Formats: sequence, C-alpha cells, structure tokens
Amino acid sequence: MRAVLAIAGLLGASVALAIGNSNRDKPPTTAQVMESAQPSDWRRPDPENLLYLDLPAGRVIIELAPRFARAHVANIRTLTREKFFDGLPVARVQDNFVAQWGDTDKIRQTESALRKLPEELIVPWSKALPIVKLPDADGYAPETGWLDGFPVGIERKPSGQVWMTHCYGTLGVGRDNWPDNGSGAELYVVIGNAPRQLDRNIVVAGRVLRGVELLSSLPRGTGALGFYEKPEQRTAIRAAHIAADLPESGRVALEVLRTDTPLFARYVESRRNRRDDWYLVPAGHTDVCAISIPVREVATPGP
Amino acid sequence: MRAVLAIAGLLGASVALAIGNSNRDKPPTTAQVMESAQPSDWRRPDPENLLYLDLPAGRVIIELAPRFARAHVANIRTLTREKFFDGLPVARVQDNFVAQWGDTDKIRQTESALRKLPEELIVPWSKALPIVKLPDADGYAPETGWLDGFPVGIERKPSGQVWMTHCYGTLGVGRDNWPDNGSGAELYVVIGNAPRQLDRNIVVAGRVLRGVELLSSLPRGTGALGFYEKPEQRTAIRAAHIAADLPESGRVALEVLRTDTPLFARYVESRRNRRDDWYLVPAGHTDVCAISIPVREVATPGP
Repeated sequence: MRAVLAIAGLLGASVALAIGNSNRDKPPTTAQVMESAQPSDWRRPDPENLLYLDLPAGRVIIELAPRFARAHVANIRTLTREKFFDGLPVARVQDNFVAQWGDTDKIRQTESALRKLPEELIVPWSKALPIVKLPDADGYAPETGWLDGFPVGIERKPSGQVWMTHCYGTLGVGRDNWPDNGSGAELYVVIGNAPRQLDRNIVVAGRVLRGVELLSSLPRGTGALGFYEKPEQRTAIRAAHIAADLPESGRVALEVLRTDTPLFARYVESRRNRRDDWYLVPAGHTDVCAISIPVREVATPGP
Repeated sequence: MRAVLAIAGLLGASVALAIGNSNRDKPPTTAQVMESAQPSDWRRPDPENLLYLDLPAGRVIIELAPRFARAHVANIRTLTREKFFDGLPVARVQDNFVAQWGDTDKIRQTESALRKLPEELIVPWSKALPIVKLPDADGYAPETGWLDGFPVGIERKPSGQVWMTHCYGTLGVGRDNWPDNGSGAELYVVIGNAPRQLDRNIVVAGRVLRGVELLSSLPRGTGALGFYEKPEQRTAIRAAHIAADLPESGRVALEVLRTDTPLFARYVESRRNRRDDWYLVPAGHTDVCAISIPVREVATPGP
C-alpha cells in the first residue's frame, strides 16, 4: 500500500476516506457527508457568469461574481465578447502568489469596454444579504462566511463592509497604484497561500471552479514579480468565452455545492474535525480559505 | 507601465516598493526594512541540514530541522547518503496541496536506514526554547512564532507542545494510516494554501529554502490524491545530496534571514501593515504561514 496523505482533493478524499470508519457512532467523514448530498444541495451557475479561458493545455472555468463587482464583471463580459483576450498571454506567474493574464503590454484596443470603472472593493453590509457564517475566528476579518457561494469577510461595524476574501483560486482585477482601479483587461488568479492582505485592496470578480491547475502548474516567471522575461515563455490564451454564448454542446455542465444548506454546514464540520482513520488529532478549527467548495461535472447540461 | 500586484515575492517587492514612499514619517516598507539589514541579521544553515534535491529542471534546497524530528532527519540523511532517492520519482502532485517523492512503490532496499522510527510529532514545550512569538491571533494554535527559523504552533497548556506548522514549502514525512510513522523514504512538500489541519498529525522535517517552484510547477497528477497515472508522467530525481558531502564548489551559498532579531520583528510589522503606495488598507494582521522568510545567495561560501 502506498503511503499517502489521505485527504484534501475532494475526489481523492472520497477514495481514501470511504475505506475506514467502521465505528458508526463517530461524526461523519467528508466522504460520508458528500454521499448523503441530494440534487438540491447542488447549484448550476448562471452561464452568463461563467468565463471560459481556453489555454493550450485545457479550459479554466471561472464563476464571475456580479454582486461583488457588477461593473467589472460587465466589463469582463464585454471584453470577452469582443475577443479582447484571444491571443493575449499569461504574462506573469509568481510562485505562491498569482498567475496573471491579459493586456499586460497595454497594446490592445477595445471597442465598447470601459477603461474607467467605479470602485467596487466592498459590498455594503445589510441584514438582507444571504450570508452563511463560518463560526471559526479569523484574524483578518471580524467574521467570515459565504455569499452567493463565494467566501467573504464581514465587518458589520464600524465600516459595514462585506468583501470576497483572497483564497486559492480567487479571480482579481489587476491594477496600477491607486486611484487606478483596473478595468478587467488584466486579470489574476491566486495560486498560493491565501494572500488575505489583498482583501479590500483590489477588486475581486470571481473564483475558479475548475482547471486552476492549468494556471498553477505553469512555469514561474523569472523577472520581477514573476513576469516572464522573454515573450516566448508566455502562454497564449487561445480564446475566452462567456458560456452563455456557446451552444450547449460547447459548454461544460458543472454543478457547485451550495453553501446555504444544512449539508454544507455538515461538510464544513467534517473539514474542521477530520474523522477519517488517517488523522490522529482533529484541528477543531478551520478558516474560510481552507474550505474547498466541491464542484462536479454532470452528464447533461441544464435546461 | 504595467498593471501589477506589487508585492509578495520579496525580490519583486524590493523592485516595486523602492519607488514610492516619499513620506519619511510613514512606518518603513518591507523594502526599507530589508535595506537596513546587517550581515548579523542573516544566518548560514549548517550544511549537515541542507538537503539538495536535483531535478531535471534544477535544484530544490531544503533545510532539515533536527530539533523537530531528530530521528527522521538522521534517517533522511542516511537514505540520501545511500543514494536511496537517486532515480526515484516525484510520483504525486496534488493541486493546492503537496508534491511527494521517494519510494512510493516500496520497491527499494535500504542498507542502514531504519524502517521504524519514534513518533516525532511535537517538541515538549519549555521556557528554555528560544521561541520568537508572533503576537497575532491564530485559529489553529493558541500561539505561533518561530523556532530555529522554522514556523511553529505553541500550546503551553494543557499539552505543553510545540510543533512546526504546515505552511507553503514545509517538508513532511509521508506515512500510511497510524500507527505508521513514515521513515523518510517518502517525503512531501506543501505547494498550496497552508494545510494546517495536518499539524501534529504527521512528522515535519524541514522546509524549502529555494526552488519550491520546481515542485509547485510540475503537472498535476490525474489519479486519486494527485498520483500520476502513468510512469512516464513522473519526474525522476537525478540525485539527492546532503550539502556537507559536496565540495564547496558544488554547494550553493545561501543565507536565511534570522527570525530572532529586532530586524525580523520590523520585517513582520512591514508585512502585517503594508505601507507601499500600492496598498489602500493595511490588513493590521498577519499569520505565521503568511510570513515568507527571506533567503539570499551570497557570493562566497561560508568558512
């Protein structure tokens, strides 16, 4: 038998965790929780919010988050539909930080996208926001949780702010020094330890649902900030699409585990205290960026 | 000018941060702190504690941590000196988790290394331990800090335990289910968000000082737990060495920023509250895995 670290990747975890656990009195493992999921525990993202980034090695699928950055998401859709990103490079891959693509050289024109956008760093807090809270303490925010399936930090007082946290796979909008805001012409994805110091400092527009490894396994750039030093080191984007613009046959039918269900609460508990036979000491704690939200491909696309 | 996320990688940060900051009253930026470092702020790791892992793409340099896992470190040295690792593969690369190498198939013999080792999950807490504490709260441990330059969690009561935390770049010892302990014949390095749930569950033996990107940029395995499905997908280790066994000409002269100095405290403060012109809102918080410890190559090897 191979010596493994049995956990983490969820599909892997299912394989590894299903073996042990003969004791029926123990709290359920992650695999056991997920086996009990019903169809209603999953959601299908709106195809208007799905950005496909087709790289030579495959497709990265990103869910855009209009509630957090309405104007930026709209601009990213516009740029994508103009084929602005097609042929532009992944120009920067900085280890344990970000992979960044788009019009790094500022050479490309846009027909209808905006170059100046409003500041969209936070969402005003309101009781009406359907936030699911994570009870665990967090050092970077008074409270954390999920909103629309995205991880958030919450500061009800004094600022009254909610913001998407920078976790592995978070999509952000590159910018110059303030007051530049970024337009969406350059985008980045987090490929390292959650850089929470970026929270509320830069516009966040979504998160990767699938294929983040196509970005995280790219060679690192050896220039300052992880930029590639030679043009031939860059990876060219073949094409970017909004899923809604493709025929059903060209889409990938993904479902994402809902974060506003009792099942999700049990899932989080199974991650807070790992109960499979590999673990000796359950941590008794988790954090919003340590919780990977399961994604699955379903056989048939949605109606 | 390129739109960049100006920070994170320290060398990159120096480039980006040296530009702004005309206001002399502001607390120093990371670049300004590092410019004030003296030779005594740096240390040269003991060559007996430096493990070189030579991959086709280059050398990974790991500092072993005998205080945390004396028997495991001794066994890793023995295995390395027997050329046990030479030709063995990196057999598992799981996205946002670990890269793992060694005798995954359990086919290789050892002459003098041990197959059974004592449990070395924690160091007993003692006032005499030269721990430097990080004042920021941490959800996974009552206290955190650094010991011998390695990040640690601390629980003085009730357990009286100190342990190395699982951060990006941490070296761990693969094992089967408990009570298997791992022998060092299979090793892994963290290449994703800090998997703190592993703390005190598996033996930790050091951390990568340089070249972690040679592991983190490998293609991800598509099998369960990120194992490669075909032998030809694996990356073979050309050779592993303990630096002390190589002539000076074959070593890399690295220095690591000391963690037990006033300068390091200022460095941490500059990371807790970023002061360069890119940032709008300093986080006012950091955590032990968010602090990258600077490493530099010096022109001449040590005496």
